[in-house]
Formats: sequence, C-alpha cells, structure tokens
Amino acid sequence: MQRDIFLAGAGQTRFGEHWDKSLRDLMNEAIDAAITSSPCTALDIDMIVIGNMLGEIGSDQAHLGSLTSALLPHRPPAIRVESACASGSLALHTACAFLESGRAKTVLVVGAEKMTDVSADVIAEALMGAADAEEDRPAGLTFPGIFGLIASRYMYEYGLKRDDLSIVSAVHHARAKENPYAQFRSEISPEAVSRSTLVADPLRLLDCSPISDGAAACILSTQHQSDIRIAASQIAVDTLSLVHRPSITSFSATKDAAEKALQEAKIKLSEIRFLETHDCFSIAALINVEDLGFADPGHGISVYRRLFERKNDAPVLVNESGGLKGCGHPVAATGIKQIIDIAKVLRRDGERFGMAHNFGGAAATCGVHILEHSHA
Amino acid sequence: MQRDIFLAGAGQTRFGEHWDKSLRDLMNEAIDAAITSSPCTALDIDMIVIGNMLGEIGSDQAHLGSLTSALLPHRPPAIRVESACASGSLALHTACAFLESGRAKTVLVVGAEKMTDVSADVIAEALMGAADAEEDRPAGLTFPGIFGLIASRYMYEYGLKRDDLSIVSAVHHARAKENPYAQFRSEISPEAVSRSTLVADPLRLLDCSPISDGAAACILSTQHQSDIRIAASQIAVDTLSLVHRPSITSFSATKDAAEKALQEAKIKLSEIRFLETHDCFSIAALINVEDLGFADPGHGISVYRRLFERKNDAPVLVNESGGLKGCGHPVAATGIKQIIDIAKVLRRDGERFGMAHNFGGAAATCGVHILEHSHA
Repeated sequence: MQRDIFLAGAGQTRFGEHWDKSLRDLMNEAIDAAITSSPCTALDIDMIVIGNMLGEIGSDQAHLGSLTSALLPHRPPAIRVESACASGSLALHTACAFLESGRAKTVLVVGAEKMTDVSADVIAEALMGAADAEEDRPAGLTFPGIFGLIASRYMYEYGLKRDDLSIVSAVHHARAKENPYAQFRSEISPEAVSRSTLVADPLRLLDCSPISDGAAACILSTQHQSDIRIAASQIAVDTLSLVHRPSITSFSATKDAAEKALQEAKIKLSEIRFLETHDCFSIAALINVEDLGFADPGHGISVYRRLFERKNDAPVLVNESGGLKGCGHPVAATGIKQIIDIAKVLRRDGERFGMAHNFGGAAATCGVHILEHSHA
Repeated sequence: MQRDIFLAGAGQTRFGEHWDKSLRDLMNEAIDAAITSSPCTALDIDMIVIGNMLGEIGSDQAHLGSLTSALLPHRPPAIRVESACASGSLALHTACAFLESGRAKTVLVVGAEKMTDVSADVIAEALMGAADAEEDRPAGLTFPGIFGLIASRYMYEYGLKRDDLSIVSAVHHARAKENPYAQFRSEISPEAVSRSTLVADPLRLLDCSPISDGAAACILSTQHQSDIRIAASQIAVDTLSLVHRPSITSFSATKDAAEKALQEAKIKLSEIRFLETHDCFSIAALINVEDLGFADPGHGISVYRRLFERKNDAPVLVNESGGLKGCGHPVAATGIKQIIDIAKVLRRDGERFGMAHNFGGAAATCGVHILEHSHA
C-alpha cells in the first residue's frame, strides 16, 4: 500500500428479502450505520465508490453514483464500479487507489443489491451477464449449471463424494446462526443438503447461495485512523468463459490476486487466521481454500471437515460470518460485508491478519484484501 | 495532478450502426488502434478501465472488465465503471487515480457501447436508467422529454426562439462533415432542424443525438511520455432527479467540475482554445457553454451564432469533431472520444489547452478534463 488506509467505520443491513425497501433505502441504511460507527461525520466523506451489478435489471436504475451521493448532504463525487459478484471488492480496490493517489482522504465504499423486485427467472438471466454472452449463454448455461459442471469435473478428478460436499453448507449455516445480519440463521445437517432439491447435477438447492437484498458500507480513510488497516488490496482476472481455461477445478485469478496480496502485505499465508471466501456454491469454497494455499488440490474438504468438527487444527477459520450460503449474497454487497466480518473477528479474538476473497462469475475477476488489526 | 500523465495512444471505431460487430468486436478495434498509435506494446498495459453503460440490456453482458482484459495477451487487472453518459470521463478519472497512486504506470481506458442490437424502445428505456427510477420514470419521462422540459423553461426564461436553437445542430453537422469517424457527415441547415419531426416539444429529431454503436480507447501513462498531458481530471455530481434542483436551466455539476479542473490545471478559462462539450440535445450545448463560463446565462446562442458564421471572435471553438449530434453518441465511448478529438485539434493548430466536458443523465454526473499540448 502506498499510504496507510484505515477502516474508519462500517455498517450493513440484514441480508435477506426486504420487500419493503428499495435499493436506495438499503444503501441509506448501510451508510447511516457506517457513519454512526465511525468518528467521522457525513461531511468528512470526500468521495464515494458504489459497487452494484444488477441495478439496471433489478431496479431500472443505472447511474448509482449520483443517486448514492445525494444520500449525503454535500453530494461528494461518486463512481459506480461493476464487476459482477466481485463488484464489492473492486469498489474497495478503486477506493484504495483514490486514497493512495491523494485525491481523497476519506472514501465511503458501498455495495448494494436489490434482487427480489423482479422474478427469480429475470434475476437468473441477469446474473448470466457475469458469464460470456457469446460463449456461455448460448450453451444454455446458468450459474448453477456452470458450477455444476465444475463440481462434476472436480468429483471426477479428485474422487470427492456428494455427501462430503454437503459438509460445506452445513458449516456455513452453523456459523450464520450466530450472525444477526445473516439471511439464514438455522443449522442444517449435511444429510439435509444431500437430500435437498436437485438444481444442476451434482449441485442441490442447499449447495447454492440464495437471492438476497442487502447493502454494506465501509468508510476507508487515510486521515481517520483505527485499529484496522488495509494491509493489501489486489485484483486479478481470468477469461470470462470457462472454455478458454486449461482447468476448471482451480481459478487462476484467485491464485494471482492472493499471491500479490501476500506480497503487498509482506506476510506469509500462515499468518492469516481468518478467511472470508466466496462460497457462491459449495464446490467454490473447496476450490478457494485450495487455490489460496490452505489445502492441496483435491484436499479442500479436509479443511471443511475440521471446521465441521470445530477442531482447533484447521489451517484457517473460514467464513465465521456464515459466508454467502448462510448470510445471503446480495451480489455487490458481499465483497464489502466480507471486510466488515473480518474486522469483527480480528477484534473479537485479538488476532492480527485476516483475508477477504471475493470473485465474480466463475472467478473471472477476483479481489483479495488483507486486513491487519493493530491491537493484536 | 499528483503525477504527470500523458496520452500515449488513442484510437476509435467509426461511430454509427455496426450491424456486423459485437460489443467485443468494437472494443477490439478501438484497442488495436490505440496500441498501434502508441509507442507501447500490449504488454506495457498494466491495467484497464472500461466505461460502459448499456452492456446488460444491449448485449446481455455485464462483467466487461474480464471480457476486455482477455482481448490482451497477458490479461491485466480490469475494472468497469458506469456513470450513464459520463461513463467515459469517469473511466478516465478512475484511470488517473490508479496512475497517480502508483498502482499502474500505463492504463488502457476504453469506452464502448453497442446500442443497435435491441429495439430503440428497449434502448430508450435502458437510457432512462440514467434518471431517477423512483422520481422521473413514473412521470412518464424519457430523456428527450427531460431535455424538452429544460428547453421549454430555458426559452421561457431567456426568450430563446425555436429557430435560434436550430443553429446548434447545424454547427455540429458542419463540423462532423470533416470527421471520418462521425456518424453523420452531411451538412444540415437550421431550417431543416426546425422542420424535422417533433420529438418532445420544443425538441425536434435533429436536436437529438442519435443511437450509435462505437468504441474509443486511450492509453494513459506516467511512463510513456507524449506531447499531450492530462492537466486536470475532475468530476462532480448533482441530484439524479430534476425535481430537487433550484434551476433546470443550469447544471451545477458542470460548474463544480470545471471550476475544480481550472484550479487543478492552474489556468484561466480564457486559455482554453478548444472545447468538446456534451450536446446530447441542442439545448444542452447552450447551457454548457454558459455553465462553463464562455457565455453569460441566456447568451450561449451568441457563441453558436459566431461558430455558425465561422467568425474568429468566438470565445472558444466548440465541438470541432461534430459533437454528439454529428459524431453519434455511443454513450460511454463519448467521454473517451472527446479526449481523442481535443488532442487532434491541439496538435493540428499548435494550441496549448483544450477542455473535454462530458455528463451523464441531466448532468447528474459531470467529468471535465483539461489537456495540455507541450509543443504549442
């Protein structure tokens, strides 16, 4: 990092179905919570970066920079960033660049999504905008279909069993139970996952993160210090379509972004105590812990087995918030909410380093942030 | 500017109806032209910022960062920025922040739009995403309707006649005739504008910029120097909806962004020899030259009368490219293309400073860039 950037405030809405709230209402609620939690007033904010993917189709609304800015009394400059499900982490990354450039001293970063005002069919189509419209969509693929293919190939390559995969969502639900902002605060057994409705073979309903409304906001500042510092902010990309990749059981954008982030933070992977990772589908969580280096290829399930049994020997604690499966996944809000959750657990346990790993599409864009807690 | 940023390369497609080209094809063509014009190879590009508004609805495609990155052999990190018709200038502004932060040394900035693959009705609806979906759209407004209201009020306040307004498009078409990349290379008389089909009273068809396909790309670099430097990059916002503004015959975001840009460039307005301004509708061009300070309120038409008569005493030469009316307006491409055109005329005439003024919606977001030509 070119300058010290601190997490000066953070807040979010509950993730879930908010029939009575618009995209603007959700953003307003998260922004209010972030400002209230901080030493800043609204007037300290000299820039806004808003991450959003689905405004156009879900709410007939583009141009969210201007809309969001008008929620503050002084209408600071505002930019909307979109990178599918990685919109949140790319908004954070963009905010870091503005802070490092010196153009801004205190940036409000918002991620928000309103997914329940249109039918699930429309949202499923809109989410396919994250894949290649010329190469993936004509094949009839949806995102459950894409990750179903990935899971099939992974099971073929590594011999993973369907019932093993079910452990992943069980772990995430168990953690979400403790999170008041989570969409699903109920435990589920691996057996319930295995028995749930088939969506895209081998993936079942409870392997899939849900459709959610929600917003999350952070205040990043070079001026207002706090006990949480952004130690690294990195992004990387891969081909949009799976057809151009040498493997679909590993995501190169994750590896690239994480490697650059560890270099930037000047730490080793073993110093990361907490990880929030992008479990849009259960299989993604296994691939992610492998790509990030917490398990060898094909052995991600061993990490989740330890987490399931709440053993202390897991190499990293994953998705203590409940992850995308437990918390819900209001697309662009997820990348911001991961930062909030990492900050919470670092403070809770007095640990020093945590990582947030967020991707878009089938990891065609990936953002990795490392947070450092100074009171550890 | 925190560092010297140079325009190291630039290229664009012709703007118009490209039935045989996809959004990806258009971007590829503009990127190739930009790289070919520069001293760089593709591998020198260490970041991409892509401006686009209508990908989701016009091409079923979000997540354009990843898509654009894959057009280069080494897939650099990429971010998509959206701010309605100001997406191009906000992409440039974001690129400047990444360059000033030191995170990137050479950034490819692309603006692209594919508007003709869906019906004009669908595009008109999609463009309304640039206005307030809760406050403007339910009133039945379209953008011609919004600027029709603005024109009516302006004519009421300042006594502008319908036939005077017609001079604006005549000027832009006369300039576009000389531009090989323009959509409309034919002169039109003010009388033809006044007689054209009524669209939204008092605006007629030839007061309105068209629906266009096109892409434009710049290479901005702190490493590869050129004779054109970005002397200022500023953005500002206003309320999304007109209903919250004290006046609709002047745009505060334009004034704010331009004032900050002149301060940043450390120059006076009188040093600006060329202006590319956002004439999405003829009335906008008049308001813009007033808001930017080249004419008093209500007297923008005097600038255009001088331009129409090609008199040398105009305070600034406006839209030598043909502007949005003459060149076409592939939304996000416009803000990038303005930079390319300012660089051209500065080099052509050996002048020192030019300004590009780009806005989104009814100037709810505005980007202003000042270019400096070192060989002047």
